[in-house]
Amino acid sequence: MRSVCVVGLGLIGGSVLRAAAAAGRTVWGTAGSAADARGAIAADFSVLDVDSALRKAADDDALVVIAVPLPAVDAVLRKVADLAPRCLLTDVVSVKGPVADAVAKYAPNARFAGGHPMAGKSESGWAASSAALFTEAAWVVTADEETDLAAWREAARLALDCGAGVVPTTTLEHDAAVARISHLPHVLAAVLAACGADGGPLAMALAAGSFSDGTRVASSRPELVLAMCEGNRAGLLDAVDDALGKLGAARGALASTGSLGATVHAGHHGRATFEGYRDAGRARAMIDLAGPDPMEELRLVGARGGRVVGFDGDLAVVALPVLPD
Amino acid sequence: MRSVCVVGLGLIGGSVLRAAAAAGRTVWGTAGSAADARGAIAADFSVLDVDSALRKAADDDALVVIAVPLPAVDAVLRKVADLAPRCLLTDVVSVKGPVADAVAKYAPNARFAGGHPMAGKSESGWAASSAALFTEAAWVVTADEETDLAAWREAARLALDCGAGVVPTTTLEHDAAVARISHLPHVLAAVLAACGADGGPLAMALAAGSFSDGTRVASSRPELVLAMCEGNRAGLLDAVDDALGKLGAARGALASTGSLGATVHAGHHGRATFEGYRDAGRARAMIDLAGPDPMEELRLVGARGGRVVGFDGDLAVVALPVLPD
Repeated sequence: MRSVCVVGLGLIGGSVLRAAAAAGRTVWGTAGSAADARGAIAADFSVLDVDSALRKAADDDALVVIAVPLPAVDAVLRKVADLAPRCLLTDVVSVKGPVADAVAKYAPNARFAGGHPMAGKSESGWAASSAALFTEAAWVVTADEETDLAAWREAARLALDCGAGVVPTTTLEHDAAVARISHLPHVLAAVLAACGADGGPLAMALAAGSFSDGTRVASSRPELVLAMCEGNRAGLLDAVDDALGKLGAARGALASTGSLGATVHAGHHGRATFEGYRDAGRARAMIDLAGPDPMEELRLVGARGGRVVGFDGDLAVVALPVLPD
Repeated sequence: MRSVCVVGLGLIGGSVLRAAAAAGRTVWGTAGSAADARGAIAADFSVLDVDSALRKAADDDALVVIAVPLPAVDAVLRKVADLAPRCLLTDVVSVKGPVADAVAKYAPNARFAGGHPMAGKSESGWAASSAALFTEAAWVVTADEETDLAAWREAARLALDCGAGVVPTTTLEHDAAVARISHLPHVLAAVLAACGADGGPLAMALAAGSFSDGTRVASSRPELVLAMCEGNRAGLLDAVDDALGKLGAARGALASTGSLGATVHAGHHGRATFEGYRDAGRARAMIDLAGPDPMEELRLVGARGGRVVGFDGDLAVVALPVLPD
């Protein structure tokens, strides 16, 4: 089993280190945060300085996992280019375009496939990490035209070893999708919370279920929300424009005809679609990775809402959603 | 104790009938739905045809409670004007402006104060009704300039007997507040659900916590959401315009400077404000209803996020929120 070098030992990086070790991998890490480093050492993990960690990765042909916040990615990639320029490389950052651009700029010779585990919790840092964080979660591994299949398989294998299912898609499609289902919800929750509070004590005293549900994520730490949303500027702008268009259409219909029928029925249908995928059955299929265009086959799995759930030699085992009629 | 005649025996009307009876009141009802009528009779309640129910209310000087959907209110008020024109009258409809307008038009001699218990559940009809539905809930009783104090006290007494706390405010302020904390959440949930579903199966497969929370109320029955939101057209238009302005400002800032700081911090502050009122301590105070302007005193209680929690002769016992520093 390929060894794993994790750069950054916060909630996600720490959980990758734990889960990969639990799967039987040789693992080591490096952390910018002294508290995270101390925590990992106290838990009997090998924690090195960043130069030593990357040199060891080059020596062992390990998979390097970048698990630092987006603003720190460039500096890590400069180190990678210097110390392990041709390493197998992935990341767990929540936006994929800026990371792919940075890899192309700073570490173009790395064998790279981007990653994004769709898991988290409200606490942060090594102290919150857990080997079980990714169990049954979706974990995107980017499958672009230029992605190296061997690099993709290494990143996907790590995700599977961590207990996740692998969703293959392009960098652009990932960023567009998470803008709609992860970043736009934060923006709308912030808008709703501010509109409610602007109603004053009377509105706050009357607020209950629907307001509480709709604003829950507005209690997240602002600096984390900002890093996530602002890092996906292009994707989020498209999603916000879609929301502005739909909200403007609702406003126009209510003002002119008094009806919100189109808005409310579209929303009800959208929620039912979400619940349909959430509760769907799964059908198994196989993809031959030795076939003529395996990356295109993999992208189709993601586009259909499916996951890669294992490998059998050159076959990828796939689970596709089976929706009720 | 004043007897109570409930017109409409669905979830809310049925629960009022049950709760008023449990408080020791003489109660009877009338229902347009045969299923609701059968249910109430089977539970040993007195159910009359609408004419008989209102004639009995006039004979007994009972409090008449209108608990039908907004589109059916006019027809009930015509009956009231015909059969019990000077009755004590309240309602439990979720929007107060259109009901007040209809009372002024059809039953101008009734002694009226509007009501809105902030309680509900996903099931509807008599079968879902419960004497405990209003326990600890906020129950708005409108206190406009022209509201008769005796009528206000009768409606408030019923709310207290049902286990709720009474929030006094004007018709206009009620409709503006619920637009922000009850109707706008439904519109934004619908917009978010549609934006997410437009992202296709990939977006649906990646959607989790923040999307699920933000779209939960979009699973409500569309006809109920539409009746509620469309009935508050004026209030909701103002709230949607506020949301459009805030969302447009977020879009502009993200596009021009790359920052969502103002949006996210305002949302975080708004959510903290909501949680502050939700978790606030309560301080007791008294209002002398025999004083010079008791309705203005009552309105100030609502404006401060407080409730009337009891009566002691001509004193109203008030609980005001005490927020942490």
